Amino acid sequence: MLTLFKYNWQVRDEWFDWCGQVPFEELIRTRIGGVGSILHTLFHVVDAEGSWIGALAGKPDPKPNFEDYMNVDKLRNLSHAFRDEVKPFLAHWTSALEDKTISVDWNPGDVFTYGEVARHVIAHEIHHVGQLSVWSRELGLQPVSANLIGRNL
Amino acid sequence: MLTLFKYNWQVRDEWFDWCGQVPFEELIRTRIGGVGSILHTLFHVVDAEGSWIGALAGKPDPKPNFEDYMNVDKLRNLSHAFRDEVKPFLAHWTSALEDKTISVDWNPGDVFTYGEVARHVIAHEIHHVGQLSVWSRELGLQPVSANLIGRNL
Repeated sequence: MLTLFKYNWQVRDEWFDWCGQVPFEELIRTRIGGVGSILHTLFHVVDAEGSWIGALAGKPDPKPNFEDYMNVDKLRNLSHAFRDEVKPFLAHWTSALEDKTISVDWNPGDVFTYGEVARHVIAHEIHHVGQLSVWSRELGLQPVSANLIGRNL
Repeated sequence: MLTLFKYNWQVRDEWFDWCGQVPFEELIRTRIGGVGSILHTLFHVVDAEGSWIGALAGKPDPKPNFEDYMNVDKLRNLSHAFRDEVKPFLAHWTSALEDKTISVDWNPGDVFTYGEVARHVIAHEIHHVGQLSVWSRELGLQPVSANLIGRNL
């Protein structure tokens, strides 16, 4: 389970680096699809992972506000802080957790297994990063590689 | 391992259904990012899974040509045929396969583990589907849901 999270973390850090070549107004420009802007989409994947995996790990929902993280360095720091919070839990993932169930405030009335939540969070980020890749090409820039092979994960 | 493939197969079938509402010329129109068009991107994920997972399962590379599958029904049939070929192998995936290694014609000189190849193929499709979602919004259409939760996988 951890490998795909490590993939997302490595790719996400490369997107933060990628942002360094892009004017701020392009990072927050409203675009078609996704959560609306490059920076907001990056914030959204950080926020979603922190909420969902934090919930599995028994932590309160951190609920950060985008307005407080409209800055690449601040957002990268938030991303690393959230990762440090959830990594020990994911590193000790066992098959015994797969069918354990959880309910969360933001999906009232639903019951999910830990296995489906973990995979949901993995797929959620990869999907949004695919959107970033289109916006990168629209800016005339090479997107971060989505390849998982060759990353020594 | 199988769950994320089942997710991709379900989402992919929903994208084939989604194509039914879109004029053919929009499906093959060259777009920014991805493999260049909606239909070619769908062909590409089918082709990549057939090649990579087929290789892990010890099958020859099928090497289909896009020109022969520029039709949603034909491509859906190819997708189902390839899935039927690789599903038994994935259904019997065990941790013993994780570190087994393979080399493939299309990445000469590289050696990959089965574990990284399987996850590469999973991430590859989810990433490209994220691109489809942007193009769908550009067409004014609701994209297929990328949610993994709630699919009973």
